[in-house]
Amino acid sequence: MDETLLMLPGPTSVAPRVLKAMSDNIVNHRSAIFGEIFTETTELMSEVFKTQNQSYLLTGSGSSAMEAGLVNIVKPKEKILAIVGGKFGQRFTNIATSFGIEAKELNVEWGTAVTPDEVKVALEEDEDIKAVTIVHNETSTGVTAPVEEIGKVVANHDALYVVDTVSSLGGDRVDVDKFGIDVCVAGSQKCLAAPPGMAAITLSDDAWKAVDNVDSNTYYLDMKKYRKAGAGTPPETPYTPSVSLIYALFEALKIIKEEGLEARVVRHETAAEASRNAVKALGLELFPEESVSSATVTAVKMPEGVTDADLRGTMRNKYKVELAGGQDHLKGNIFRIGHMGNITYKELAITFSALGMTLKNLGFDIDMGAGVSAVNESYL
Amino acid sequence: MDETLLMLPGPTSVAPRVLKAMSDNIVNHRSAIFGEIFTETTELMSEVFKTQNQSYLLTGSGSSAMEAGLVNIVKPKEKILAIVGGKFGQRFTNIATSFGIEAKELNVEWGTAVTPDEVKVALEEDEDIKAVTIVHNETSTGVTAPVEEIGKVVANHDALYVVDTVSSLGGDRVDVDKFGIDVCVAGSQKCLAAPPGMAAITLSDDAWKAVDNVDSNTYYLDMKKYRKAGAGTPPETPYTPSVSLIYALFEALKIIKEEGLEARVVRHETAAEASRNAVKALGLELFPEESVSSATVTAVKMPEGVTDADLRGTMRNKYKVELAGGQDHLKGNIFRIGHMGNITYKELAITFSALGMTLKNLGFDIDMGAGVSAVNESYL
Repeated sequence: MDETLLMLPGPTSVAPRVLKAMSDNIVNHRSAIFGEIFTETTELMSEVFKTQNQSYLLTGSGSSAMEAGLVNIVKPKEKILAIVGGKFGQRFTNIATSFGIEAKELNVEWGTAVTPDEVKVALEEDEDIKAVTIVHNETSTGVTAPVEEIGKVVANHDALYVVDTVSSLGGDRVDVDKFGIDVCVAGSQKCLAAPPGMAAITLSDDAWKAVDNVDSNTYYLDMKKYRKAGAGTPPETPYTPSVSLIYALFEALKIIKEEGLEARVVRHETAAEASRNAVKALGLELFPEESVSSATVTAVKMPEGVTDADLRGTMRNKYKVELAGGQDHLKGNIFRIGHMGNITYKELAITFSALGMTLKNLGFDIDMGAGVSAVNESYL
Repeated sequence: MDETLLMLPGPTSVAPRVLKAMSDNIVNHRSAIFGEIFTETTELMSEVFKTQNQSYLLTGSGSSAMEAGLVNIVKPKEKILAIVGGKFGQRFTNIATSFGIEAKELNVEWGTAVTPDEVKVALEEDEDIKAVTIVHNETSTGVTAPVEEIGKVVANHDALYVVDTVSSLGGDRVDVDKFGIDVCVAGSQKCLAAPPGMAAITLSDDAWKAVDNVDSNTYYLDMKKYRKAGAGTPPETPYTPSVSLIYALFEALKIIKEEGLEARVVRHETAAEASRNAVKALGLELFPEESVSSATVTAVKMPEGVTDADLRGTMRNKYKVELAGGQDHLKGNIFRIGHMGNITYKELAITFSALGMTLKNLGFDIDMGAGVSAVNESYL
């Protein structure tokens, strides 16, 4: 299999011990033995979400949890406020529209973060907002939104607070109960460092009340069914889950618990700071405003005259380091370095060593070692 | 991990070589290297479906493919004919109802199979049927429906033919193009013998025409998005797929190709015949009519005075063989022996050895070895 170093905003490299757990024998998903694994996994998920509420595992991508998180609490024709500053913020609008839900967008320039005041104004302008959707860590732009502060604003209104922490949970500070988050969704393959294919969701009491008022307009992602199956003995999922991926997620969550959530966030912050410093040391420019840049992915402007194929192609083919490109209108204009999951100075040393050589290959007159030096400075 | 022998109608035991493939390094799901694996996997899926059409992989349970297969081709308020002879046939009705689609049920007694004539009459009675849904192999009752013959009936009407082969594909004869199937759905964890968590779907040209006429009322399972992403270079999924489970499915499909589809079906038929003979040799009664009994799961009436906990509990706890119970109103009234995937005389020898001892434990005056003898007779 491919030995390329993944420096993507998901999927991320998975620890051998997680891969090993994943390859254990399949068991009956409706057995007591699986019920125990399932219960412990969902309990660890709630610990990572920092919530007293139950967590649910969905067999699906992070987007399945975004859909579940929205369409179970809002009826068709009702209105949401969708905060859009990138591709994943936009996704909530797209999901809403598919289900006949009206999405009023609060657009912020890609690369900047929404402010609590802007949310306050938008909510005061419109009494009919049933839910506010926001992406905590917008991987498409490398921006972190102030979800804690916005939570305080939303708490003053009769709207539910739906937060996508797909690419922040386990890598940046998420505190579902403290932030007043009503629906929080996450994916397995980002900072949790498990393989892709599982999503997690947790709902507050207020969110569950909304669920009970919405006629199910979905079947596979109907949260009423997940609640019912999860309350059984043993707790189950309504449909056959990814048994192997739950083994993997369980192991990945045990690793997080061993490391400690706060230590893990600090490790991500250090990696982010090191990455930003290394980018600048190599003469490149950050895409987002640095004050709101992400703890888990660093977005970088593509240097003038360099194509995505030049830069990412050389990184991948010559140096075996996989970076992410830009999405939508940012395609070719930025590239993105994911530093999620099991990231230490080692992966950054490799990445910025490769990026230095790549830029030199492309004819840039730079100090090739400056990136790695900046990484070292940040870690020393 | 648990060493219990799984004799379930899914999930089934997975070959070590599949588990090994699954634990390979995660790669970028939008890379050329993954595109190759993905393409080969979907091509093998189409070979197993026996269709010239493209197959699509969904990160989800088999039920996600049932939903995708129905709600992408039928609009809310339109009508389907749902053939219901068990829990999974019923599921199509439930999905339809969740999406505001009218489901006219053709109910057949659980344990019997619908006849082509009954379908003919139902279709002639109602011109407005947009699609007919049927479960090829109803695991809840152990019955196989005559999907080929019903396909000929549906072909005479202006209705699409939606067939759930979740628990038959790779274990019983499925020939999508020859049977005139418009939408065929499957799951990874049944006769394909891959871990649970992936589903597959294929659509005919007529089905795709219907898709183009239906406004998407789903997001995660919107087949238009799968078609678009699948047509890209490299072919992709719209959302991050279960990379590891696709490795596993790819390996499982290679095993199927090595064995040969027809040889594999014959192997399942032999296991089914051996199981039925062994059940009868132990003095037990089959639940379904034997003429329509399944090639992949044998449903057995619970002996008088024996509880599910007695029988399946003893099998599981004392003899480490896991059987399935009855579902819905059949709970406690039947038990089910899955013989799907990598099943040979060996697993059946263990299972009927255990069942003989279990019945003896429960006070039955039987020839304990009669089950295994019947298995041997069938295989000799």
